[in-house]
Amino acid sequence: MSEKDFYAQKDLIKRLVRYKNILLRLKSMGLSRVFSDNLGDAAGVSSSLVRKDFSLASLAVGNKRGGYSIDLLLRRLDDLLGAHDVQRIIIVGCGKIGTALLNYKGFSNENIQVVAGFDNDPARINPANTPIPILPISQLEPFCQEQSIQVAVLAVPEKAAAGILDKLSAAGIRGVLNFSPVQLKAGSALFIQNINIAFEIENLFYHVRFNQRQANAGS
Amino acid sequence: MSEKDFYAQKDLIKRLVRYKNILLRLKSMGLSRVFSDNLGDAAGVSSSLVRKDFSLASLAVGNKRGGYSIDLLLRRLDDLLGAHDVQRIIIVGCGKIGTALLNYKGFSNENIQVVAGFDNDPARINPANTPIPILPISQLEPFCQEQSIQVAVLAVPEKAAAGILDKLSAAGIRGVLNFSPVQLKAGSALFIQNINIAFEIENLFYHVRFNQRQANAGS
Repeated sequence: MSEKDFYAQKDLIKRLVRYKNILLRLKSMGLSRVFSDNLGDAAGVSSSLVRKDFSLASLAVGNKRGGYSIDLLLRRLDDLLGAHDVQRIIIVGCGKIGTALLNYKGFSNENIQVVAGFDNDPARINPANTPIPILPISQLEPFCQEQSIQVAVLAVPEKAAAGILDKLSAAGIRGVLNFSPVQLKAGSALFIQNINIAFEIENLFYHVRFNQRQANAGS
Repeated sequence: MSEKDFYAQKDLIKRLVRYKNILLRLKSMGLSRVFSDNLGDAAGVSSSLVRKDFSLASLAVGNKRGGYSIDLLLRRLDDLLGAHDVQRIIIVGCGKIGTALLNYKGFSNENIQVVAGFDNDPARINPANTPIPILPISQLEPFCQEQSIQVAVLAVPEKAAAGILDKLSAAGIRGVLNFSPVQLKAGSALFIQNINIAFEIENLFYHVRFNQRQANAGS
């Protein structure tokens, strides 16, 4: 996937999630049909983009004149986005951040289940005594294939990140949330979301300074 | 700040950081002047948006015809974005995620210094024996004011987040990186960046499923 396609898909999925939330709200208000104009207005995009998105995502079940069935749209969005299953993930790298995520309580509310951790450090391996086993990296591929795991959180040091990414890809992983402080590039079969904590904090300082400068300029 | 203004400023600062990186690259190639057209092309925006951004951020030091001095632009961007100082932050909430961030090695490379943690749990308070003290929340306001702290990382449980946010605001904090699983809204004097880990993972699953569906449709 080219970088442009990658960002286009990211934006499309962001909009699909937004449409879904708007449709749920409209449904709860008793509506049964919706027009691309209404949906566009509520989502802050043009009605032609709504129709283009529906066509790209093969959701189009209606027409410009008669509107779309809200129930049918919601059903197809659920099929597409997969809202009902338990989402099983692994954590690769069980240092401080990885261990925090391994025990993160916020996941259970969202139907996310951490099924295992993986680490190269023998001192961290713990296959039996914890509710979530920590296994050696060598078991990554058989484990993921046996358990059909498709999504991993990566929390390894910077220098290990690229090597582990190759192993994840070989193990059949299709989506990675990357907490390691290196910007990893997605391949054609692997989607990567980078969370760079230091970068986010730098960005906060930009905003704080910018606001202060604007306030000073105004006074 | 209205929600619209908030997003507009977020986008502006994102573009300013992008301009800065492009200018640094052009400078390293030996260029001394740049036109809004070139910068726009490299940044993927229109030249008129470049000129509008420069005017909004009071960077405009040149004109459409003669181009802009790269050195001068970089100097003003550095003044504005504040690239050189050590960026001192606090961590509020020293559970698993907070403690991991308290000891996060990725910060030092980026000139980010964690000066203290804060927590309500007396068992976690540790003012003396750690390199980074963990203090009770009651000391938040005097500490931040004495130390001129403007940026905080929030890693408290969902139900505590809103209350702590008020305390941070009263303590003079102007930027918050929020890891608690609740979407916090920025006020006029407080910029908030929400990182919802569960949401990011859900989003990964959307992408994985979407890609699979597209691949199946294509085969």
